[in-house]
Amino acid sequence: MADIFARLLQDSGPLGQHRDRAHGYFAFPKLEGELGSRMKFMGKDVIVWSLNNYLGLANHPDIRKVDTEAAAAYGLAYPMGARMMSGNTAKHEELEARLAAFEGKEDAILLNYGYQGIMSVIDAICGRHDIIVYDAECHACIMDGMRMQLGHKFVFKHNDIQDFEKQMDRATALAEKQGQGGILVISEGVFGMAGDQGKIKEIVALKGKYDFRILVDDAHGFGTLGEKGAGVGEAQDCQDKIDLYFSTFAKSMASIGGFIAGDKAIMDYIRYNIRSQIFAKSLPMPFVIGNLKRLDMLQTMPELKEKLWHNALKLQNGLKEKGFDIGETNTPVTPVYMKGGVEEATAMVMDLRENYSIFASIVVYPVIPKGHIIYRLIPSAAHTDEDIEQTLIAFSETKKKLDAGAYKVAEIPDDWRHAKASDC
Amino acid sequence: MADIFARLLQDSGPLGQHRDRAHGYFAFPKLEGELGSRMKFMGKDVIVWSLNNYLGLANHPDIRKVDTEAAAAYGLAYPMGARMMSGNTAKHEELEARLAAFEGKEDAILLNYGYQGIMSVIDAICGRHDIIVYDAECHACIMDGMRMQLGHKFVFKHNDIQDFEKQMDRATALAEKQGQGGILVISEGVFGMAGDQGKIKEIVALKGKYDFRILVDDAHGFGTLGEKGAGVGEAQDCQDKIDLYFSTFAKSMASIGGFIAGDKAIMDYIRYNIRSQIFAKSLPMPFVIGNLKRLDMLQTMPELKEKLWHNALKLQNGLKEKGFDIGETNTPVTPVYMKGGVEEATAMVMDLRENYSIFASIVVYPVIPKGHIIYRLIPSAAHTDEDIEQTLIAFSETKKKLDAGAYKVAEIPDDWRHAKASDC
Repeated sequence: MADIFARLLQDSGPLGQHRDRAHGYFAFPKLEGELGSRMKFMGKDVIVWSLNNYLGLANHPDIRKVDTEAAAAYGLAYPMGARMMSGNTAKHEELEARLAAFEGKEDAILLNYGYQGIMSVIDAICGRHDIIVYDAECHACIMDGMRMQLGHKFVFKHNDIQDFEKQMDRATALAEKQGQGGILVISEGVFGMAGDQGKIKEIVALKGKYDFRILVDDAHGFGTLGEKGAGVGEAQDCQDKIDLYFSTFAKSMASIGGFIAGDKAIMDYIRYNIRSQIFAKSLPMPFVIGNLKRLDMLQTMPELKEKLWHNALKLQNGLKEKGFDIGETNTPVTPVYMKGGVEEATAMVMDLRENYSIFASIVVYPVIPKGHIIYRLIPSAAHTDEDIEQTLIAFSETKKKLDAGAYKVAEIPDDWRHAKASDC
Repeated sequence: MADIFARLLQDSGPLGQHRDRAHGYFAFPKLEGELGSRMKFMGKDVIVWSLNNYLGLANHPDIRKVDTEAAAAYGLAYPMGARMMSGNTAKHEELEARLAAFEGKEDAILLNYGYQGIMSVIDAICGRHDIIVYDAECHACIMDGMRMQLGHKFVFKHNDIQDFEKQMDRATALAEKQGQGGILVISEGVFGMAGDQGKIKEIVALKGKYDFRILVDDAHGFGTLGEKGAGVGEAQDCQDKIDLYFSTFAKSMASIGGFIAGDKAIMDYIRYNIRSQIFAKSLPMPFVIGNLKRLDMLQTMPELKEKLWHNALKLQNGLKEKGFDIGETNTPVTPVYMKGGVEEATAMVMDLRENYSIFASIVVYPVIPKGHIIYRLIPSAAHTDEDIEQTLIAFSETKKKLDAGAYKVAEIPDDWRHAKASDC
């Protein structure tokens, strides 16, 4: 019989295999100084493209003031306990009402954390006879929520409506065979890696043909999409067809927690049956007050979203003009696709950070197929034209080196990690 | 084919069935004013026994000061992103090192929330061939973590070592038959409902007989048990045999987040394979700094734990002297077992709140068998002798009424909910 730990020591996992080389630089880097487009990495000033601080609220003086005042008024402990037992307040209910109104829904439920929140939403809704039909590129939290479910799941090819219909045919046939259970469709407002919007309008247009409810995770769409910033449902003019609208506060709201919104009767059900909220502490009060202020600003300061989009389009158009492949993004999320090995990617990122002062995150094998590199740039309202121009130059120059094979021969200096010890 | 929402509208669930009557009073009550032993409920002063504020840190002036200063210095947004991508800081690492040292472990990993944290710890460790053997009364977060696992699970009767051995025999036989996979045992330091410590010392003493690793959820033991307050492992003198020590910050630390501690090589593995941390935002900085301060006080102010135990024993001895059944608790968690129907329990709790100014939480059918009532009282260092004396009198008097059948005929006034509208 094996020791359960033995396997962990033999195989560090897809990300862990790079640990010795990556830790503190490529993985678990420390970004210091005030949150914004320019921060410090290992003692050097860098332009940061890795924060989902879309509207630049994280460090807005009005936000900092409210965050501080709320912490002073309540401390970070209040309220204690789960919402249902002892952790409810009028402010929690006020934020729920405000979010519901903003999203055009009857009711909303505040979640203490987005990840466990959406997991338990899926869990609360689905019984063992219910069937889930989901987009192949759904986020890890949705995957984990589905893993708790005993019912059947059908996955459709990412944003492929033809395949969606095929899977819905299968799901419907199974439901009819079972004689019980319904269908929950799950997709996202914005797919966080590629930046393409989920084809929500096209999916909900099939509600006449198929019988289903849909849960949309709009983590990246909330605050960035639609005239009012209400997200993908507003942008695609189909919000009323989204049965369950979910977002985290970790992106545009520059905070923690999240919410789910929908019909009051369904929210009432979820409120009394959502395990991660019934059995874990309520969102602390300073975050509730801080989130009320963030929502105020999101609603009353359209210039933040305008600046975000100005920056996103300037970055994306600049990249396209320089011949970069940025895929199918139609949101601020900006992927840059390149070809190269893991070693080349590593050398290129180091060159960008060390010599061009650009801090950008990459994804390589084994997260994506071998030979591919994806940079994932997140523009925000906090970036300046100068940040973007400097970045475009840096990408041009390093891409030329990549294409010329310069990073193939480039060696990672043996002593690069020494900088870490002295600077951090 | 059914609408997946139809079932939710027909059956509100075990807790939701009481929603119309319970909401705002028995469920989702609002406790207002400064966190402590005396707060306001619907405008009335009450003595509160529902907060896991064991050491009274929630509202300690030194904590309030540090919480405020940290929020002022960093805002509530910093750092943004997951630890692995952009959400790491030296303070996060400092807190990890401090927690590891306190628990006598090589390393520790900070978790952004306890519930999703332990779920993903279980997930990171267990492969499809691994077997979990767990105590029947483990917390919901452990149950949810196990629900994601495909391997076999064996449950042993709560704290029953004989049954534990029986299940270990079965698990060992299965592992040998499989030819691969190991065994993870999961139990708790303190069972939060009944207040009895897990028999961890007796379980780990069987490590010679059986081959397994053990994960202990010490949510209620951290800060309350052991000479130093390091929890159940210290209290039972077997900390070195606990492979994975977990606690939330939501109880003694009066905060949010949690941690897992153990051997460095295993922590290294978990750090790179723990989904809820890799794919969700890092614990915000003010909580990290606030938790460092809480840990300081927990370590340097033994008088807090002494006061907690003084209060716990005064409450428990007082209840026993008055003939109450408080079961097998050997921790501050104080259950009070009574017999009666749901209606009686409801009337009794109302009498306690409205006429005796005691705010206590109860558990009734269907969470526990019909005809039983459990009060769950959580004493803390913040309670006073007077709070306890007043509570003992109130319990005596209401218990007499219960035994005399007074709550059977008592009717719940039609207008009790009106108080809510005007006071909250």
